[in-house]
Amino acid sequence: MEKNIAKDLTMKLSQRALEIQASPIRKLMPHAVAAKQRGLKVYQLNIGQPDIPTPQPMLDAYHSFSEKVLAYGPSQGLDAYRNGLVDYYARQGIPLQENQIIVTTAGSEAVTFAMMVVAGAGDEIIVPEPFYTNYNGFATMAGITIRPLLTLAETGYQLPADEQIEALITSRTRAIMICNPGNPTGTVYSREDVFRLGALAKKHGLFVISDEVYREFIYEGRSHTSILHVPGLEDNAVMVDSVSKRYSACGARIGCVASRNQALMDATLKFAQARLCPPTVDQLAALACVPLGEDFFRPLIAEYQARRDLVFNALMEIPGVVCVKPQGAFYILVKLPVDDCEKFIIWLLNDFNIAGETVMGAPGEGFYATAGLGRDEMRLAYVLNENELRKAMHIFARGFEEYKKLTT
Amino acid sequence: MEKNIAKDLTMKLSQRALEIQASPIRKLMPHAVAAKQRGLKVYQLNIGQPDIPTPQPMLDAYHSFSEKVLAYGPSQGLDAYRNGLVDYYARQGIPLQENQIIVTTAGSEAVTFAMMVVAGAGDEIIVPEPFYTNYNGFATMAGITIRPLLTLAETGYQLPADEQIEALITSRTRAIMICNPGNPTGTVYSREDVFRLGALAKKHGLFVISDEVYREFIYEGRSHTSILHVPGLEDNAVMVDSVSKRYSACGARIGCVASRNQALMDATLKFAQARLCPPTVDQLAALACVPLGEDFFRPLIAEYQARRDLVFNALMEIPGVVCVKPQGAFYILVKLPVDDCEKFIIWLLNDFNIAGETVMGAPGEGFYATAGLGRDEMRLAYVLNENELRKAMHIFARGFEEYKKLTT
Repeated sequence: MEKNIAKDLTMKLSQRALEIQASPIRKLMPHAVAAKQRGLKVYQLNIGQPDIPTPQPMLDAYHSFSEKVLAYGPSQGLDAYRNGLVDYYARQGIPLQENQIIVTTAGSEAVTFAMMVVAGAGDEIIVPEPFYTNYNGFATMAGITIRPLLTLAETGYQLPADEQIEALITSRTRAIMICNPGNPTGTVYSREDVFRLGALAKKHGLFVISDEVYREFIYEGRSHTSILHVPGLEDNAVMVDSVSKRYSACGARIGCVASRNQALMDATLKFAQARLCPPTVDQLAALACVPLGEDFFRPLIAEYQARRDLVFNALMEIPGVVCVKPQGAFYILVKLPVDDCEKFIIWLLNDFNIAGETVMGAPGEGFYATAGLGRDEMRLAYVLNENELRKAMHIFARGFEEYKKLTT
Repeated sequence: MEKNIAKDLTMKLSQRALEIQASPIRKLMPHAVAAKQRGLKVYQLNIGQPDIPTPQPMLDAYHSFSEKVLAYGPSQGLDAYRNGLVDYYARQGIPLQENQIIVTTAGSEAVTFAMMVVAGAGDEIIVPEPFYTNYNGFATMAGITIRPLLTLAETGYQLPADEQIEALITSRTRAIMICNPGNPTGTVYSREDVFRLGALAKKHGLFVISDEVYREFIYEGRSHTSILHVPGLEDNAVMVDSVSKRYSACGARIGCVASRNQALMDATLKFAQARLCPPTVDQLAALACVPLGEDFFRPLIAEYQARRDLVFNALMEIPGVVCVKPQGAFYILVKLPVDDCEKFIIWLLNDFNIAGETVMGAPGEGFYATAGLGRDEMRLAYVLNENELRKAMHIFARGFEEYKKLTT
């Protein structure tokens, strides 16, 4: 038999391009767009895009940009804004110096930098699961393996005991990464648990990356413990943050990385220099929000708490639904007695409506790294006003009733 | 002898964090900052930050942003802006459809996406050297190896013969990446050479990534050949672009990736979804520049050509200086009879001035991947007006004369 020795000239993409998951938050958008084109109103609970108006001082900053040349800023961020962040963190009980903060293009770049600076290709990062789905994408791009640490609805998605975490540590483990308050679970870690995690990381020489973009969104007067609150963890702790949710400014794309580990910050600065700088006007806009304090956040948190209660109570009315009352952030993970929540979401968009309206969630599977988990779950973001949420949850409940009849 | 089995708990950073180079364009900035603090004026020719005013329509777009919520945009970029880009590229003789364009956070993210989608960790990309230094940083972060293809001042840094390029191709080679017009060389590839490179890539089943952010900056009426002009190269060609230089808007951080390879664009969209979206208001600002045509670019190019002539002629007056007259972009690579240009630049900032003024360039070594090359070179960016450039070049010439006396 003659061997074909012709060269294969098919243009193959990289392994990471083949492996990277489609965003579960965004991949069903074509169905939503089609539904809208058919004239439907879609209550979008799939994405954490708040309806809260962006603070006027921030919008004013765009309107009053007065430079003649829209120039590069420093790679580490504008001095004025880093100064502002020092103030902001001091008010959170997190004393930081300017050189312990690098401004990033949103939380996304902050997570990417943090992952890349602690872990190389083939290294592992332990992440409590379910977790913010895009951690998967960043890890795939960086060649890092996420080792999921399963947390359960039954225990409020809280951190498991040390032994269970330690069972996942291998010679390739470089860090433990948490999201606190948690997306998609709404779980807030107690001070004890954050300190326990810090001690565990120190014991094993691991970094802790703490994603704290929902810091302010905590209900019933609970308080937030930052990884940077833990004493003695200077070398291990890396915090990532963003203004997107805090100031309802997802389109500004401004975040930061902060750590007291100077070698880590020096290396992160080199990553930052490679991409030159974060957007300039958007940093000035974020700076304008730094003075916002209790007067801004108190009514905001009350509003979100009322929304959470509305959504949680509506879900509790639906037979067969399992979910945990979120303590923070603005998401709720809903377990439904269906085979595949993704199919249910697509059905809601394609085949269901009440008076020309329907509702959209994000399929749960993408929030897990363990194969097979999350298929019967869906994440809802309570980012609409109570009136709209009430209608959305009514449609959700009626739609679920209908869908169950069709599928059982 | 007793073996020490205690665990090493030193916090080690990742290999890529240890390996990534400091930006040669930015790493000497502390010396410039110190010089300014001592009251010196520093003519900054180290960085491609034009002094040209950002077009008024772009500034107006910031001033007139009228949404109440600064929301996420689509991961692929705002529809209106992608439509605008379709128009812009059509005017460049590059017919594209909207879904062949993904808007990125500046050219930096476009290069990162392009590299990552074609090459995995351990794969190789061939890049004519000297090249834009930050390609090194992006490659290090992605675990990709850059295989430098040496080009020479003697031949105007033009592309070598096919055989020399082919000699670098291994089983791990995934792409050839060019910058046209070139940073730091100012070299513009001829239509013949771009087509030749396309044919070579096709023959070997390689991608061609073409960085065309300086497309408009071409002198003496030469024309630009895009990689997307090459027929039959649909599967292989990837173009990266940015508004930073074109519209003097480096701080806007808006760029794009374009390709007619749909599988590649689909995978790139997944990378884009992981980081959610590029900045929203900045896209609207970039959109406002799309209508700018000949009336905007003709005087701009004339201005840069005059600046190039001024800098090139001034350099030619200095004994021992070797450089090639740039055909495009706004950089010139200068070879000096010194051991180490970095030391010379630091000396200019720390120990030299004329009437309280000095000048800064970028050390050449970082623009090479081959060890030892470029140490006697420096990149100058002619991004100041003629009056300032004249003073800067006078200081450069006098400083060089002085420095030679000190070091020989």
